[in-house]
Amino acid sequence: MRMDASESLRIPSGKKVDLKTCDPKWIPKWARHCDKKTVKKEALEILENNKQTLMARQELLWASDTYALLVVLQGMDAAGKDSVIRHVMSGVNPQGCQVTSFKTPSTEELDHNFLWRHMKALPERGRIGIFNRSYYEDVLVVRVHPEWLARQKLPSEQVGKNFWNHRYEDINAFEQHLVRNGVVVLKFFLHMSKEKQRQRLLKRLEDPKKHWKFSVSDLAERGKWNDYIKAYEDMLSRTSTEWAPWHTIPADRRWVTLASASEILVDQIEKLNLHYPKPDETALKKARQQLEEEKEQLK
Amino acid sequence: MRMDASESLRIPSGKKVDLKTCDPKWIPKWARHCDKKTVKKEALEILENNKQTLMARQELLWASDTYALLVVLQGMDAAGKDSVIRHVMSGVNPQGCQVTSFKTPSTEELDHNFLWRHMKALPERGRIGIFNRSYYEDVLVVRVHPEWLARQKLPSEQVGKNFWNHRYEDINAFEQHLVRNGVVVLKFFLHMSKEKQRQRLLKRLEDPKKHWKFSVSDLAERGKWNDYIKAYEDMLSRTSTEWAPWHTIPADRRWVTLASASEILVDQIEKLNLHYPKPDETALKKARQQLEEEKEQLK
Repeated sequence: MRMDASESLRIPSGKKVDLKTCDPKWIPKWARHCDKKTVKKEALEILENNKQTLMARQELLWASDTYALLVVLQGMDAAGKDSVIRHVMSGVNPQGCQVTSFKTPSTEELDHNFLWRHMKALPERGRIGIFNRSYYEDVLVVRVHPEWLARQKLPSEQVGKNFWNHRYEDINAFEQHLVRNGVVVLKFFLHMSKEKQRQRLLKRLEDPKKHWKFSVSDLAERGKWNDYIKAYEDMLSRTSTEWAPWHTIPADRRWVTLASASEILVDQIEKLNLHYPKPDETALKKARQQLEEEKEQLK
Repeated sequence: MRMDASESLRIPSGKKVDLKTCDPKWIPKWARHCDKKTVKKEALEILENNKQTLMARQELLWASDTYALLVVLQGMDAAGKDSVIRHVMSGVNPQGCQVTSFKTPSTEELDHNFLWRHMKALPERGRIGIFNRSYYEDVLVVRVHPEWLARQKLPSEQVGKNFWNHRYEDINAFEQHLVRNGVVVLKFFLHMSKEKQRQRLLKRLEDPKKHWKFSVSDLAERGKWNDYIKAYEDMLSRTSTEWAPWHTIPADRRWVTLASASEILVDQIEKLNLHYPKPDETALKKARQQLEEEKEQLK
């Protein structure tokens, strides 16, 4: 079974996105005739298979030494970004996988161009890099909170009416540069309903083991829900490109999220058509011979 | 006196550059009626004045905390890149000035996109950053030596007939991003004749104190002079933009080089129209009062 996620959830380049038309409870076509329990069971099976494939493909990515994979995760609080990292990537060799969480920028980071800290954290060839939040926050939270833009201390002549368009342009050019240099860029927007966020935040308050995940500012941000949706829609419309497309991952049901995200990842790596590098048979034979001979000498 | 360097040596965006028509012995118009000794004296005086101005302006750049200045230096061996850094920047407070020399990339650097190591080294707001060689080597030495491109291990589908055009595009977009985020980008190509290089390399061989600067590979590169000129011409034609223009700095006479480079730098900073931030008079008054009062208490 497949989620058909790569085909169904990818945002075509140039499409004007209206999130009201995207269902956070989306399930694939075949699942619409099944009861919820069956769908969940199928989805978890898909996830498990994809995890196995991912482990194997990651080793191939490393060995073939040509591409890096960058996964950008965006979504509101409690949309499930951490859960995707934990449940999709947990089997992968940590040597080939690095996660960077971008929080409030430091003074040093604010003293540089906004892409600076993200460029520094890019994965090397052969690795999977995951950005838990990313440079897209610079057209999301910074857009919703103009006071955070002020902290970037930009020259006033640069903050004109095309300011956000220029940021989209810069981001698209940045990602194109990455792709041209062998970094495959995959972008996931975890799309959750406002009601589902309410339930999840409430759960955090009720479970003492999850209290640490709750912050009062979460509610303040929730208060700006509609502003965020507008910023997300504009961002998705302007930065889903041929070379680095966005995917809207339905985020109200965790198993759908995980099965979809893992499937898109696997599909993407399969498309690269990777091969183990061809060994030098003569050299291998010689090495084998030498080791055999040493056995005699070491007796 | 002025060198009129900003106006005369700037390469207009879109211009097809033919280096045969650029004189490495160029001097400003007014100097063409003077004897060499007078011109040299004038040029050194211009340099001295510019250095004084630069010291003061650098402090202002720091205090006004809005812009960074990036100076990109390119040129053949012995064109005088080190000399520009030493003689133009030597008066500037080192806290506000950082020089990065880009040599052969490390394995870690080769495992990233070619702009990665340069992005990491960008100056913070308030500082002058100097790139002694730069990402432009990726369209110069890498173009002249295809074996160095192979070491970048790019996916084969990315190395098509538009490969160099794509690199120019990426560089232009990168610099535009910098400018939009308050980094002023100034690019100097030190243009020296082949005969002058011959003389300077010979001098290095004759002066034991300069032997360390000589490397046998210098001669090998000199052997590819025409290939380099072609790569430089293409690069200058394609990457001199409105937002980050190239300047062809005549490099056969050191005093012309230094006077011109320093003048362009000063002109550029003056154009930013910087001001010291307005102090909070009430707060200053209160602080003064408090310190006065403490004098009484400490008696």
